Amino acid sequence: MIHKYVYFFGAGQTEGKAEMRELLGGKGANLAEMANLGINVPPGFTITTEACTYYFQKKQKLPPSLWNEVLDNLKTLEQVMGKQFGGTEEPLLVSVRSGSRASMPGMMDTVLNLGLNPDTLTALAGKTGNGRFAYDCYRRFIAMFGNVVLGIGSEHFEQILHQKKAKQKVEFDTELGVGDLKVVIKDFKALVKRKTGNPFPDKPIDQLRMAVEAVFNSWNTDRAVTYRRLNRIPDDWGTAVNVQAMVFGNMGPSSATGVAFTRNPATGDKEFYGEYMINAQGEDVVAGIRTPNPIAQLEKDMPEVFETLTSVYKTLENHYKDLQDIEFTVQENQLYMLQTRAGKRTAAAAIKVAVDMVNEGLISKQEAIQRVPATQVDQIFHPMVDPTAKVEVLGKGLGASPGAATGKVVFTPEQAMEMSKKKERVILVRTETSPEDIHGMSVAQGILTAKGGMTSHAAVVARAMGKPCVSGLGDLQVEPRKKRASLNGVVLKEFDSITLDGSTGKVMRGQVPLTKPRVTSYFRQLMSWADKMRVLNVRANADTPHDASVAREFGAQGIGLCRTEHMFFDEERILLVRKMIVSDKAKVREEAIKKLLPIQRTDFTHIFKVMNGLPVTIRLLDPPLHEFLPGAPEEIKVLAKQMRIPATRLAKQIESMKEQNPMLGLRGCRLGIVFPDIYEMQVRAIIEAAVKLVKKGNKVLPEIMIPLVSHVNEFRLVRERIDTVAKDVIDKAGVKVDYKVGTMIELPRAAVTAGEIAQEADFFSFGTNDLTQTTLGLSRDDAGTFLSHYLEIGVLSEDPFVSVDQNGVGALVAMAIEKGRAANKKLHLGVCGEHGGDPASIEFFHSLGLDYVSCSPFRVPTALLSAAQAAVRTPLP
Amino acid sequence: MIHKYVYFFGAGQTEGKAEMRELLGGKGANLAEMANLGINVPPGFTITTEACTYYFQKKQKLPPSLWNEVLDNLKTLEQVMGKQFGGTEEPLLVSVRSGSRASMPGMMDTVLNLGLNPDTLTALAGKTGNGRFAYDCYRRFIAMFGNVVLGIGSEHFEQILHQKKAKQKVEFDTELGVGDLKVVIKDFKALVKRKTGNPFPDKPIDQLRMAVEAVFNSWNTDRAVTYRRLNRIPDDWGTAVNVQAMVFGNMGPSSATGVAFTRNPATGDKEFYGEYMINAQGEDVVAGIRTPNPIAQLEKDMPEVFETLTSVYKTLENHYKDLQDIEFTVQENQLYMLQTRAGKRTAAAAIKVAVDMVNEGLISKQEAIQRVPATQVDQIFHPMVDPTAKVEVLGKGLGASPGAATGKVVFTPEQAMEMSKKKERVILVRTETSPEDIHGMSVAQGILTAKGGMTSHAAVVARAMGKPCVSGLGDLQVEPRKKRASLNGVVLKEFDSITLDGSTGKVMRGQVPLTKPRVTSYFRQLMSWADKMRVLNVRANADTPHDASVAREFGAQGIGLCRTEHMFFDEERILLVRKMIVSDKAKVREEAIKKLLPIQRTDFTHIFKVMNGLPVTIRLLDPPLHEFLPGAPEEIKVLAKQMRIPATRLAKQIESMKEQNPMLGLRGCRLGIVFPDIYEMQVRAIIEAAVKLVKKGNKVLPEIMIPLVSHVNEFRLVRERIDTVAKDVIDKAGVKVDYKVGTMIELPRAAVTAGEIAQEADFFSFGTNDLTQTTLGLSRDDAGTFLSHYLEIGVLSEDPFVSVDQNGVGALVAMAIEKGRAANKKLHLGVCGEHGGDPASIEFFHSLGLDYVSCSPFRVPTALLSAAQAAVRTPLP
Repeated sequence: MIHKYVYFFGAGQTEGKAEMRELLGGKGANLAEMANLGINVPPGFTITTEACTYYFQKKQKLPPSLWNEVLDNLKTLEQVMGKQFGGTEEPLLVSVRSGSRASMPGMMDTVLNLGLNPDTLTALAGKTGNGRFAYDCYRRFIAMFGNVVLGIGSEHFEQILHQKKAKQKVEFDTELGVGDLKVVIKDFKALVKRKTGNPFPDKPIDQLRMAVEAVFNSWNTDRAVTYRRLNRIPDDWGTAVNVQAMVFGNMGPSSATGVAFTRNPATGDKEFYGEYMINAQGEDVVAGIRTPNPIAQLEKDMPEVFETLTSVYKTLENHYKDLQDIEFTVQENQLYMLQTRAGKRTAAAAIKVAVDMVNEGLISKQEAIQRVPATQVDQIFHPMVDPTAKVEVLGKGLGASPGAATGKVVFTPEQAMEMSKKKERVILVRTETSPEDIHGMSVAQGILTAKGGMTSHAAVVARAMGKPCVSGLGDLQVEPRKKRASLNGVVLKEFDSITLDGSTGKVMRGQVPLTKPRVTSYFRQLMSWADKMRVLNVRANADTPHDASVAREFGAQGIGLCRTEHMFFDEERILLVRKMIVSDKAKVREEAIKKLLPIQRTDFTHIFKVMNGLPVTIRLLDPPLHEFLPGAPEEIKVLAKQMRIPATRLAKQIESMKEQNPMLGLRGCRLGIVFPDIYEMQVRAIIEAAVKLVKKGNKVLPEIMIPLVSHVNEFRLVRERIDTVAKDVIDKAGVKVDYKVGTMIELPRAAVTAGEIAQEADFFSFGTNDLTQTTLGLSRDDAGTFLSHYLEIGVLSEDPFVSVDQNGVGALVAMAIEKGRAANKKLHLGVCGEHGGDPASIEFFHSLGLDYVSCSPFRVPTALLSAAQAAVRTPLP
Repeated sequence: MIHKYVYFFGAGQTEGKAEMRELLGGKGANLAEMANLGINVPPGFTITTEACTYYFQKKQKLPPSLWNEVLDNLKTLEQVMGKQFGGTEEPLLVSVRSGSRASMPGMMDTVLNLGLNPDTLTALAGKTGNGRFAYDCYRRFIAMFGNVVLGIGSEHFEQILHQKKAKQKVEFDTELGVGDLKVVIKDFKALVKRKTGNPFPDKPIDQLRMAVEAVFNSWNTDRAVTYRRLNRIPDDWGTAVNVQAMVFGNMGPSSATGVAFTRNPATGDKEFYGEYMINAQGEDVVAGIRTPNPIAQLEKDMPEVFETLTSVYKTLENHYKDLQDIEFTVQENQLYMLQTRAGKRTAAAAIKVAVDMVNEGLISKQEAIQRVPATQVDQIFHPMVDPTAKVEVLGKGLGASPGAATGKVVFTPEQAMEMSKKKERVILVRTETSPEDIHGMSVAQGILTAKGGMTSHAAVVARAMGKPCVSGLGDLQVEPRKKRASLNGVVLKEFDSITLDGSTGKVMRGQVPLTKPRVTSYFRQLMSWADKMRVLNVRANADTPHDASVAREFGAQGIGLCRTEHMFFDEERILLVRKMIVSDKAKVREEAIKKLLPIQRTDFTHIFKVMNGLPVTIRLLDPPLHEFLPGAPEEIKVLAKQMRIPATRLAKQIESMKEQNPMLGLRGCRLGIVFPDIYEMQVRAIIEAAVKLVKKGNKVLPEIMIPLVSHVNEFRLVRERIDTVAKDVIDKAGVKVDYKVGTMIELPRAAVTAGEIAQEADFFSFGTNDLTQTTLGLSRDDAGTFLSHYLEIGVLSEDPFVSVDQNGVGALVAMAIEKGRAANKKLHLGVCGEHGGDPASIEFFHSLGLDYVSCSPFRVPTALLSAAQAAVRTPLP
């Protein structure tokens, strides 16, 4: 039997369904599903993703049987449409669109009106009696085909069109007449000949084959590869191709094209939401070439169409039980649905829609939990413009993606990348954005465009990225080459500061102070469900009382990592710390340590107070000592003066303390073992603070963590010293303090010998950042030189510092858990690396049966939700 | 039943035997064994090592039942000797000596003549009719007890004695009369009172108890701990205490004391070898205070004693089937044996004795293999003075430990340590050495002493360490405080260069050229037996044709690691390498690489030629690129001129390439992936060299090794490129080259994911140096600051860079072997880290079932022998 590569849809002959998304791609599967639901879909057929996979496996050759199957389906399509592909009576035109498993907006390419040539053009014009329409179709087709299939930059076509409009002194394409379009088409064809050396292909069947291959090839363009990498889509999924009978939104005032969402994708409000354009083809709306009308206006413009559309969207939402993003075309008052898919939405909208749908009885609480991408949750904590701040509003566009952002103006994605490398915050300002801009958008704080609506490329992508965006600000003129823009008479030069409010659409001069948003009752509702489903607990990494209280507010169940060294960098203290480290005189060291004791005690007292009743894991001093050393000659002078030694001698001493590989040098418990008084001071401060609060009736649960243990003897020795100091303080105070002593598992040796260490330790906390560094032999500080290259060429599919390397680091974590639990059944296990805030890593840690993850305070909600999602997806035995 | 802590020996009532060494210590077990053999041993009893262990476990308390047992045994001893401990008729005097399981020469302390006080002294003098003898015993006892038990520096006693001798204008102790000794004793007692605040203890039973505890305590002195660490003796073994009736070598001209070896411990020749001193006590010989007579002279001095001694040593050697180191005392022509033990010997002697004993039918070949400490084998390859060199001999002492050494003179162990940190080669010059000097001796190239014989501390320790030593050079006057010495009118100042010949005893001025020694037929014989027993193969790490030929000569079965980067440091090439690295112009890079290709090809051609028929593993470029960069401003200038760019620009470029943690940065295959042309050039050079030699009929077995792989994708990518280049060269040449491609397993992730990598690789070579660095998170360059501290306080018992960390790194190696073999049955497995030359590590690698180890050429014999020993000790299933 010959393998089936093509599936028909529409006209009562649909072969596919929604469940066949892997084979037919999202678009193809949903077109089939809509047809099955009785919704009016222009018929067509889908070439499967398997054909694409075959195509790339066989070095860009189509499956031998494919083309006959395409011809058969084309024949069916001709029959059901009553038209002929390439025919001069009733010419059949088709669209050719990509459609992969995962939605990839703007990434893949589309050709409309395929099948046109001078002959079919004449037929189309004759048959429809609308010459302007036919020529409009033809010029669009040539430009799209020229760009997508033949690889000619779209700006060349646009320039020709622009010149024509300028010459005719009109603003919009729709104002050009047949004569104008004929000249444009002539110029387009000449351009194609000049650029490719060949005339524009006239045979419709050749056009089709070229277009199908071009769709396949577009799977591997740089921008598609980049998008997949950013969105973690495997390269070998491939794309399907949808060939569909054309319907036309550009047949005059009774025709239109539009996109809509079944609920508001920005807020989640239950309202029909979208835009349309009269006398236009689909790409016009998405590309933001003209600013479209809000969907509400359709009720007045085409009341019957609006009614049908309303009924369709209700059908779709009830069927898919999710917010749908739909595309439609009205051809002479007849409504056709071209696409439906789960709509991208802001985190706030995702939360509200999920909660509402549970209340509407559409989905379960478990489903609701899965509906909110955990990575996006922190969007709702995005900064907003401080309502009390004085602002100078320069202009107002569409509030296309919520949240406020402030930064320096840049006009190109390249400049955005450059500045971001320098850790500068930038706002990307463009006339409109295109997929080529994705890199720049991903590093910008916010995006501002002059053209395009709520569903323009800029708006859709910004929402997906959780970045503030103001779009469609018509008063803005952008001149990238001159590195300037003007907005209502104000000139914005490169690097000028501006502030965007993506909720209101306001653009403000300078850096406006921002405030944090409040959480909504919907969020609280969702999180309360999540809390009941979670198995994994979530703690926060917090070094200050302020961080601790933020963490607690966000639902953290304790502090998983309090880095005491961060307390040492304070300006007042650093001098004491430096004395402690540098001096070779015991007395000077002792004095410095004595002065640090009450300071540290106060630190811990405040943190314990905030975390009353919850555990606080405090890591003893960890980093290489020389991190604390003065580097600049001025700093050395100051310290030398304080220490009353010559600056030259101090400089030499500091030089001698430098290490080749500080990450593998004198740090962590090695410090504590070589300089016991530092740890003893820290432990004393911790226990004294605890004792003080216990006396006041607080519940204090200190967990003292020994860093960088590689050998059980290190742990044993330091624990002995900790217990001695703790006993001394506790005995003197005469109160009970329930403290624990554990270790970071952050070296491969600690993981491998976890069984030995577990016998002595109360808890393990996996320091997956450092464990990644040593397991992979990869310095976080130095990996830049090759890690990005590795990701680009696919040697690694993930940055291992962002998402935990499950096969390598993860295997060591799993081994340590197994050995640790076997040796000590009471052993408490957590993760305190950055991975604690990454959903994929959280799911992995959940599956390993850890007790908690700990992450930065703002990631706590993400982690809480991820933990719940993991629990639903992967129930533990 | 009460636990038995004391075992009697001698006088027909012996309770112990040789097999009870763990309980009775080496000395106690052998005393019992000699008694069992009918040899004349002064009777006594042994307090077990269990008592010592108990003592330290219970915070320095003796077992409650112990003292009664001691008193019972003392009573028995009094009975068999017909004397009374503390008695004033026939006073029984005893020696108290330590004796641990392993021989620890000079490490533990001894008290002789215990039981003396003014009353017993009088009795002894009366009974023996030898007042001088009695007072000599007493002054020795006070000094020893004062030093060992009461902790008073021995120099204080010596000073008093020295002053007395000076006053009386005599050279030797023996020349002092009773009157002199009485004054000395009075001064000794005053010294004790002054130093301790208490009078010298007079009650013999108190003396005994204090001495026993002192022996126990001496187990934990710094020097004992250091010795154990150096010799890998566990701290919890403990020492036994031997209490033995005194016999006296200092009763006049018919008395003597001596030490001897049953064969020559320097050469292994089958000759009775040793020294003795008339009218002396044992410590005099070992301490090197007077220069003793060679044993041959005893035949003339005391013919009957000599005959008995000869028969005893034959008995002992036949019984123990090993070279014995014996101590004896002659008391008024009566021979007593005080000790026998396996004698320390040079490697050459160990080899000869082992081979001879096989030929004599005393031991098996397997036993012979075990008799030669593998770590000492390289001694026989020690440098010797070049016989053709012109030398200026400054003096001649005893050739106490073979081999020649050259270095700068230092006069204190501290100075030796200091210089060795600066990588300076030093000769430690001392009047005589003591256990306090061990640190300094261990870092010196050789040792020169003015006093002491072939069995002096310096000689024994130097032989054990395999270091050249000239001892007993009477013409040498050493003045450490003035940092100078004089030798036959020549002044040697600190840091002057000298050369020692430890075989001939010659001391030469300046740095004399040295040559390597030849291997003996005994060595060849032993190694041929080892070769038949070995399972593990041994290769060498060699980067040059010269190293390769040395390795092959020593029996290496291939090259396990050829580090190509070492080839790049050559002065002529480094400029090309630097250009290749620094230039951002493709053309400059390509040119440099083009010029390097023929150079590398020549390197490989030579190495392949030398290793004809044997495999050669070549590691592609590994180290961080900036290791090749010029650092000094002068070097930068030269390179900048060559590259025709401003020096300031070049300096900036170099600065920007510096890494925080180069060990974890851009190196290994990361380099090869980011800069593919470097690896491609290297592979081309390898395969072109191979092709050339294959055409000439050579057998070339190149194994191309990809360094620092952490992910299978890295391996896959680089291997693909290697195979492409290799195919190109081989296809063009039209000959077959049987090359392999494998990887270093030197990152924990590679070990953890070895199953994936093994599917793509032909071989694994464990780079245990780097694997240790990352598994323990320990930079070899930076560990100095705390690793020595760790070893001192016992956090680590071994330097993990010297002997592989079996629990940690070893567990990863074992895991990788298991996963690797499971995934690829043909996978070839080796080790190329420094551990490949360490016997303990080799035994471990053998037990894991590796195919080979690879080590530096001079370690090859050690590794070959270790591999055989491991195979005998741990037969593989």
